[in-house]
Amino acid sequence: MGDTIFSIPLWADLLAVSVGSLQGAMFAAGFRDRRLDLLGVAIIGVATGLGGGFLRDIFLGVPLVAFSTNWYILTAVLAALVGMLLERLFRKLDIVITILDALTIGLFGAIGTTKALSLGLPEIPAIFVGMVSAVGGSVLRDILLNLPIALMHVGSLYAVAAGVGTTMLVVLHLVGLNITVAVVVCVIVTTVIRLGAVRYGWSLPEQRALSRPRLRRHPRPS
Amino acid sequence: MGDTIFSIPLWADLLAVSVGSLQGAMFAAGFRDRRLDLLGVAIIGVATGLGGGFLRDIFLGVPLVAFSTNWYILTAVLAALVGMLLERLFRKLDIVITILDALTIGLFGAIGTTKALSLGLPEIPAIFVGMVSAVGGSVLRDILLNLPIALMHVGSLYAVAAGVGTTMLVVLHLVGLNITVAVVVCVIVTTVIRLGAVRYGWSLPEQRALSRPRLRRHPRPS
Amino acid sequence: MGDTIFSIPLWADLLAVSVGSLQGAMFAAGFRDRRLDLLGVAIIGVATGLGGGFLRDIFLGVPLVAFSTNWYILTAVLAALVGMLLERLFRKLDIVITILDALTIGLFGAIGTTKALSLGLPEIPAIFVGMVSAVGGSVLRDILLNLPIALMHVGSLYAVAAGVGTTMLVVLHLVGLNITVAVVVCVIVTTVIRLGAVRYGWSLPEQRALSRPRLRRHPRPS
Repeated sequence: MGDTIFSIPLWADLLAVSVGSLQGAMFAAGFRDRRLDLLGVAIIGVATGLGGGFLRDIFLGVPLVAFSTNWYILTAVLAALVGMLLERLFRKLDIVITILDALTIGLFGAIGTTKALSLGLPEIPAIFVGMVSAVGGSVLRDILLNLPIALMHVGSLYAVAAGVGTTMLVVLHLVGLNITVAVVVCVIVTTVIRLGAVRYGWSLPEQRALSRPRLRRHPRPS
Repeated sequence: MGDTIFSIPLWADLLAVSVGSLQGAMFAAGFRDRRLDLLGVAIIGVATGLGGGFLRDIFLGVPLVAFSTNWYILTAVLAALVGMLLERLFRKLDIVITILDALTIGLFGAIGTTKALSLGLPEIPAIFVGMVSAVGGSVLRDILLNLPIALMHVGSLYAVAAGVGTTMLVVLHLVGLNITVAVVVCVIVTTVIRLGAVRYGWSLPEQRALSRPRLRRHPRPS
Repeated sequence: MGDTIFSIPLWADLLAVSVGSLQGAMFAAGFRDRRLDLLGVAIIGVATGLGGGFLRDIFLGVPLVAFSTNWYILTAVLAALVGMLLERLFRKLDIVITILDALTIGLFGAIGTTKALSLGLPEIPAIFVGMVSAVGGSVLRDILLNLPIALMHVGSLYAVAAGVGTTMLVVLHLVGLNITVAVVVCVIVTTVIRLGAVRYGWSLPEQRALSRPRLRRHPRPS
C-alpha cells in the first residue's frame, strides 16, 4: 500500500499546527469573563492545534506523531501565547487567518485519510479518520471550554468541508489517481467549501423530522 | 482462554449499533433550540451508537472493530438520519425502542466483558470495560451536547443494569459455566433491571453523607 | 534506558489513587442540586483517581496499568464511597487532604514523565505526559460534571506545579542525576508550589493581549 503514503515536510505540518493553535487561543481570548490563565491558554492551544492528530493516532492505534519530536508541543504552546498576545493584530488579519485555517483543515483531513488508507482501513473509516483529524481539535477546544460543540450546529460547514474533501480523495484514489494529486484536490475542495461557507453563508439544513412542525420541547433523558 | 471468546453475527452487532444511534438522534431531536444541522445529528448518532465500542477498544489497546468494515459507521449515520426524519413514528414506538435499547446495553456489556476476559484482564477491569461498552456512547452523547451526564444522576439505572449484568457474567464464568449461557444471563439480567427501572421507577440512593441531614450551612455549635 | 525506569510499590500507587478518588467524591458532594446517585459518585471517583493514568497509558500506547489487577478500580470506587459517606470528617481534615493531594500530583507527574522517558519520548512530550498524568483526572472530573475545567482558570497552580516539577525531573535527568533523586525533587517541588499557591494565593497572570484594555466581548465561532 506504498502508494497511499503521503508525507509532508515537518515545517508544513508545524505551520498547520500553529495555525490551529493560534486560532484556538484567539477563540478563547473572546471569553473575558472566563478568566483563563496563561496555562489555560496554552492548554487550549495544544488541544486545538494537536487534538485532531492525537485522536487520529489513538483511533489508528499508532504512536502519536506529536510525541516524536519536541517541536509539536513547543510550536502549539508558542503559537497559542503569540495568538493571545497579538490578538488585536491577528483580528485585523482575519481573512488571512481564515484562509490559512481552511487550508489547515484540508491538509489535516488529507493526512488523516491517507494515513488510515496506508494502514489498510476501508474507505468510510478512512474518511471518518480524516474528518476527526481535521476537526477534532476544535471539538476538544469546545469540550474544554464547556461550550456547545460549534461544528454540530447550523452555519459552519467546517466538518462538511473536510468530509467532502476527504471523500473526493478516497474516490480519486479508488479510480487509480496518484495520491499526491488526490491530496491536492482534497485540500482545494475543502478550502473552497469552507471559504464559500464563510463568504456566502452556505450551510447544511437544520435537523427536522418528516412531519408537521412540532413546537413542543420535551427532551427525553435516557 | 478460548472459552471466553464470544462472537455475535455482524448483523446483530449492526442492529445494536443502529438502535443506539437512532436513540441518540431522537434524543438530540428534543433540543430544538440548539439547532443541530444534519451533520451534527450524524455525529451524535455515531457517538451514541459507536462510542461505547470505540472506548472499549481504545481501553483494551486493540484495533477498533468499527473500522474493520465500512458497515459500522455507515449504519450509525443512516440510523441517526432515519431517527431524525421518522422521529414522530419512533416516539409512538416508544416501548419497542426502550426494549431494544435495554437489549442493546445488555449485549454491548456482554461483548465488552467477554472481550476483556479473552484478553486476560482480571474480573473487575473486565466488568468495567463491559460497563464502558454499554454506556460509553450515551456519555459521549451528553458530553458532545454539553449536557450533564444523564446516567450519573438519580433515576436511570442505565449503567447499574449493565454493571449487574456483566458482574453476573463474570461470576458465572468463574464458576465454570459455558460462556454463551453466561452471556445470555447477562443480557436477560441487564434488560430486566433496565426495564424495571423504566416501568417501576427503581433507582439508586442519592449521594449522602453519614450524618444528620444538613440543611444549613453554618457551623454546628459544639 | 533502564536508568529512567522508576517504579513505586503498589500500595503507594493505590494510596495516591485513593486520595485522588476521595477528592473527586468530596468535590462532587458539593453539588447538592445535581443529585448524583451512588453510581455517579463512583464514576467521578474512578475518573478523578484513575483518569490521569488512563490518559497517560493511552497516550503512550501501552496497556493500562489500572487494568493489570483488580485493586485499582476497587480502590478508586471504595475511596469515592468513603469520601461521600465521611465527607464531614474529611472536610475537617482539609489540610491533611490538601497535602496528600499535592504529594499525589507530584507522584503522578513523576511516574508519568519517567514512564515516557523510559519509552524513549523526547523531553517536552515526556513533561506533557507527566502533566496529563497529574491533572488528567481532575480534567475528566470537570468534563463529566459539565463544569468549566478548573485548572485552566486563574488561581490554582495545580497543573503549573506539576509542570515545574516534571520539568525539573527532566532537567536533572539530562544532567545525569540518579532518577530516584530526580523523582524526589520533582515531588517536593510540585508539592511546595501547590501548597504555596493554596497558602499564599500564588497564581499565574490572567490571559491578556499586548494592547489597550479591551472591554468588548465578542466570541467568534469558527
